[in-house]
Amino acid sequence: MSTTAERDRVPGQHPKPDRSPKQDRSRATRQRLLEAAVACLAEHGWAGSTVAVVAERAGVSRGAAQHHFPTREDLFTAAVEYVAEERSTALRALFPDGAADRRAVVFALVDLYTGPLFRAALHLWVAASDEEQLRPRVTELEARVGRETHRIAVDLLGADESRPGVRETVQGLLDMARGLGLANLLTDDTARRERVLAQWALLLEETLG
Amino acid sequence: MSTTAERDRVPGQHPKPDRSPKQDRSRATRQRLLEAAVACLAEHGWAGSTVAVVAERAGVSRGAAQHHFPTREDLFTAAVEYVAEERSTALRALFPDGAADRRAVVFALVDLYTGPLFRAALHLWVAASDEEQLRPRVTELEARVGRETHRIAVDLLGADESRPGVRETVQGLLDMARGLGLANLLTDDTARRERVLAQWALLLEETLG
Repeated sequence: MSTTAERDRVPGQHPKPDRSPKQDRSRATRQRLLEAAVACLAEHGWAGSTVAVVAERAGVSRGAAQHHFPTREDLFTAAVEYVAEERSTALRALFPDGAADRRAVVFALVDLYTGPLFRAALHLWVAASDEEQLRPRVTELEARVGRETHRIAVDLLGADESRPGVRETVQGLLDMARGLGLANLLTDDTARRERVLAQWALLLEETLG
Repeated sequence: MSTTAERDRVPGQHPKPDRSPKQDRSRATRQRLLEAAVACLAEHGWAGSTVAVVAERAGVSRGAAQHHFPTREDLFTAAVEYVAEERSTALRALFPDGAADRRAVVFALVDLYTGPLFRAALHLWVAASDEEQLRPRVTELEARVGRETHRIAVDLLGADESRPGVRETVQGLLDMARGLGLANLLTDDTARRERVLAQWALLLEETLG
């Protein structure tokens, strides 16, 4: 599957010295394509996002793009997964010691849903709900990314899922984060979002103990 | 504005006897168009939804459709608003005495976000995020529908918004409802959703007192 190479890669890590320059170039090309694909999807939606448009944006030939990603579905699902992994890693790095400040963790988790990645993923989900070819790929991707985000939330919040209701509390928080992302799609909802989150961070604190 | 007639109408009420048969026919045509527009948007998305497609689905001539709704934007924003109002009225009717059972109210509120209306509205929002012509119309519509849903939630939950944190608690619940709607887009998320809601209904109960 086209995302295996990305999964093996540790984001932010420099290329290993024993890798050939050709491999490095191929990797860099792939990464440029993935980043351009997410930006394109966030700005122009699924209808305006093709392999050709992304290749041009990334400054890569169409042939090279198709070598890395044979189909449009390959490119865009890999792109959303790649950027989601980058953001997850960055989020973990923000809180190396976990749940020191739960309120800060809640705000940082919700930040995952208010930027270009969420816009891109939303376009992909909505397109998948109408297109049979895209649907199974995106369903699988959504489940994978959702599980990983849940794991990060549990770790960073220091939530003890063996206690009744804790798992559902964390899930509900992530559902709320998704809804807050949607509320931010057409207008800047920051001020309202911060008031809502301040209140729910209190409720969460009481529940997680 | 094209929705004024709909606002004056009491859903479910039979036509007044002093209205002419011609007015009745025009009203019935308009209603068929609005319902067909929401169904079309939910099934085929914005790209597949045109006035012509909706007119055919509603069994109405294209000329008659354009008489009621001069532009595509008129038709689809009016349609989402009309169905949202119908559903709000039906929700109020379910709980004529308000907050007798808060848990049941929470479940019914979230139901607003899991059917064809939410799918249709989601398609419209996502399209509006890319299309300058649609964006201000949908932003305004979203704000109007959002305010009305908030009012209903406050009433049915018997929430006292003069108490600190209560307003934000209700807003957060509706954000969560939107996120749960999104989680239900590609797969049937009912079982997980019910567990999450059972837990959050408890948290809500503690906060609202």
